[in-house]
Amino acid sequence: MSDALTYAARESSRFREELFEFLRIPSVSAKSEHDADTRHAAEWLADQLRRAGLAVEILQTARHPVVLGEWREAGSDAPTVLVYGHYDVQPAEPFEEWTSPPFEPEIREGKVFARGSADDKGQLFMHVKALEAALAEGSLLPVNVVVLAEGEEEIGSPSLVPFVEQHRDRLRADVVVISDSTMFAENLPSLLFSLRGLAYFELRVSTAKTDLHSGAYGGAVPNPATALARVLASLHCADGRIAIEGFYDDVVEWDERTRERIRGLPFDEEKFRDEVGAAALTGEPGWSVLERLWIRPTCEVNGLLAGYTGEGAKTVLPAKAMTKLSFRLVPDQTPDRIRELFEVHLAKVTPPGVDTELIQLHGGLPWKAELGGRFLEAASTALDEAFGTRPVLQGEGGSIPIVVEFERILNAPALLVGFALPGANMHAPDEWLPLANFERGIVALVRLYQELGTP
Amino acid sequence: MSDALTYAARESSRFREELFEFLRIPSVSAKSEHDADTRHAAEWLADQLRRAGLAVEILQTARHPVVLGEWREAGSDAPTVLVYGHYDVQPAEPFEEWTSPPFEPEIREGKVFARGSADDKGQLFMHVKALEAALAEGSLLPVNVVVLAEGEEEIGSPSLVPFVEQHRDRLRADVVVISDSTMFAENLPSLLFSLRGLAYFELRVSTAKTDLHSGAYGGAVPNPATALARVLASLHCADGRIAIEGFYDDVVEWDERTRERIRGLPFDEEKFRDEVGAAALTGEPGWSVLERLWIRPTCEVNGLLAGYTGEGAKTVLPAKAMTKLSFRLVPDQTPDRIRELFEVHLAKVTPPGVDTELIQLHGGLPWKAELGGRFLEAASTALDEAFGTRPVLQGEGGSIPIVVEFERILNAPALLVGFALPGANMHAPDEWLPLANFERGIVALVRLYQELGTP
Repeated sequence: MSDALTYAARESSRFREELFEFLRIPSVSAKSEHDADTRHAAEWLADQLRRAGLAVEILQTARHPVVLGEWREAGSDAPTVLVYGHYDVQPAEPFEEWTSPPFEPEIREGKVFARGSADDKGQLFMHVKALEAALAEGSLLPVNVVVLAEGEEEIGSPSLVPFVEQHRDRLRADVVVISDSTMFAENLPSLLFSLRGLAYFELRVSTAKTDLHSGAYGGAVPNPATALARVLASLHCADGRIAIEGFYDDVVEWDERTRERIRGLPFDEEKFRDEVGAAALTGEPGWSVLERLWIRPTCEVNGLLAGYTGEGAKTVLPAKAMTKLSFRLVPDQTPDRIRELFEVHLAKVTPPGVDTELIQLHGGLPWKAELGGRFLEAASTALDEAFGTRPVLQGEGGSIPIVVEFERILNAPALLVGFALPGANMHAPDEWLPLANFERGIVALVRLYQELGTP
Repeated sequence: MSDALTYAARESSRFREELFEFLRIPSVSAKSEHDADTRHAAEWLADQLRRAGLAVEILQTARHPVVLGEWREAGSDAPTVLVYGHYDVQPAEPFEEWTSPPFEPEIREGKVFARGSADDKGQLFMHVKALEAALAEGSLLPVNVVVLAEGEEEIGSPSLVPFVEQHRDRLRADVVVISDSTMFAENLPSLLFSLRGLAYFELRVSTAKTDLHSGAYGGAVPNPATALARVLASLHCADGRIAIEGFYDDVVEWDERTRERIRGLPFDEEKFRDEVGAAALTGEPGWSVLERLWIRPTCEVNGLLAGYTGEGAKTVLPAKAMTKLSFRLVPDQTPDRIRELFEVHLAKVTPPGVDTELIQLHGGLPWKAELGGRFLEAASTALDEAFGTRPVLQGEGGSIPIVVEFERILNAPALLVGFALPGANMHAPDEWLPLANFERGIVALVRLYQELGTP
């Protein structure tokens, strides 16, 4: 153990350089123009795992490959840890809002700025380096380790479930460890007790054969942008609740202990508002900000497009309009049921003369951790030793749909331990990861592998 | 007269080639990247007018120059006709929806397809060729002619009013002739009795410092796209009326004769709906389609933009959203008053936590013709002879803000005689002008110059 930590400390500047190398690869899975980069990221990662001492395979899927690394020298009686992460990243647009270019990592005020630094290349790479340190110079771990890194997380992991099902035996594990989330605050590590699910749609609205002159046709031909605005405005009540009939029917009653635990966390709503830069916060009445973010569902517009959006004025009556919008789900909502309810709602609110087409882009179930048990305790110990304080339990507003699927297919609990910080700008310009957390995280993970193997 | 028509018939294929040359110049006034093209269009036009026999000057403005051509050999006792047109065009986006490229004119089924074919290069060029024919081989006209062609019409003519005021004496005329509109139908020429005005805005909405992750922040931070949708949805009542308080206060009561004249026109609403390709028509209750298009005001969204609009899904909570929207005005509405009412409305409906910025991109007053009088009669005779039928009086839903200004500054009535056809796709992909109308229009204009000089 102390050898591993000494090794990690000694090699820290090389680890950082390698992290930068990884972050420089624009592995944007959503964009086919980056397919070669995404493939390159997989190969680069495979090489790193190999050098850390794992046996590695790159397994093709329909789109972006899975990198699978295995170290099984702890023997068949020892527990097996499956580490899951993803080497793909979100698109980096709008580029002009980045302080430094998204694929040219830069350290400012102790933070590594780059697309993927927090989500998830930086955190996945901590595992790689923790394994390298733990296995250096012939050292052994008390657990077998399987690393599964996919390249399709940011497009909804379409290949992963079939992959895990197909390789169920090879992937059999006692616990699934995932580092793709944030700590609760600086110097306050955390473990997740919940994740929200997701139902993501593109809604296309059309009214005419072609764009028309807004003077010659305006006033008599339906405007798809106005129609879309009316549809979107119908999704929330004035008080912030979602107005789709039946939307809240499947939402679980959270136990009072969970709400108490949330209330006990050191969180300043006013400070949060100020950091975000919003003049006021909004949301569902009767729930605190953390509850709105973690244990209540949402409906958010992610994109809007119609007509002319360039420089100056164009007096066009558009023929079509488009929105991307998504629902965050909480137990026991499902993307399928939400789609049904949304379709019924659309049929009710779409103005006459307007055609709609609804495309589901991705979806995932929400997740709740089983609390108590030795894995969570092992993680608490590891985090305590690396950060000097026991972790808190927190929810997470984002979605990692594969968590539910791992638990279902492998029948093993998931342990979600993240090292990014709130405000990390995952999915936004200026994404960052504290360099200190990258280094402490490696220490915590070395310790975690040890603890998970301690009966 | 007959010499002029013989000349025009003999030179028709050259006229067509020259029209194509003019249309090939992408004189998109709104886009600074096309400034050199716009300048080139002015110089090309000046050269054409010079060859037709006019004295020509190119006069600089703050942005795009005015081309001024003069033929004053009819003498100081003869009437003077001011011909106004514009050599700039609308942006051509979306390019992919054009059957043939917007700046590579092509004839299909007797129609010239190109950006600017109808609005307004094609129609302006008919005047140039009518003058060339009328003045060929030393022929004279009974009227003095001044041609004023600007390059800023599609960006709201910011320089034109100061220009006309500055050159008031030089531009003094008895009648202003403008060809920038459509005939009522194929083979049914028309003269305009009204134009709608315009108040065009860009509305920017913002809620946060940067784009955020819609999972990590969704549910508590205001969504600017949702806020914008709610604002846009508030602009119309469910029945189609505009919901801004006081919006209709200044709308004139149209006389019953005007409404009767509109009812008497051969117009099939169902055919119109089918041509547009809309499943249903919409608009203000209590008014026919032609009335909605000509004598009632509108509020139309011209553009919408927020968040991620590319391929695939991005779970972003945008920091800002933008719309371009415009009101078409009827007498006696004014852009200034509408802006005031719109601002009051915005203050009322903007959700909490949302900042708005309203930018007025352009505006123009609506216009009503004085009916009766010899100029309208002269035009009727000219159109009758060229098209074989007397013209009808029609309204126009679009805006030519300078018409009101010409009448005010020069104290001369405007005569609006257009040769494009309904469905010409002005401001849309696949803009077209019938080649037959280009040729008959030249005949009509030769005849018009003659008639205007006949006491």
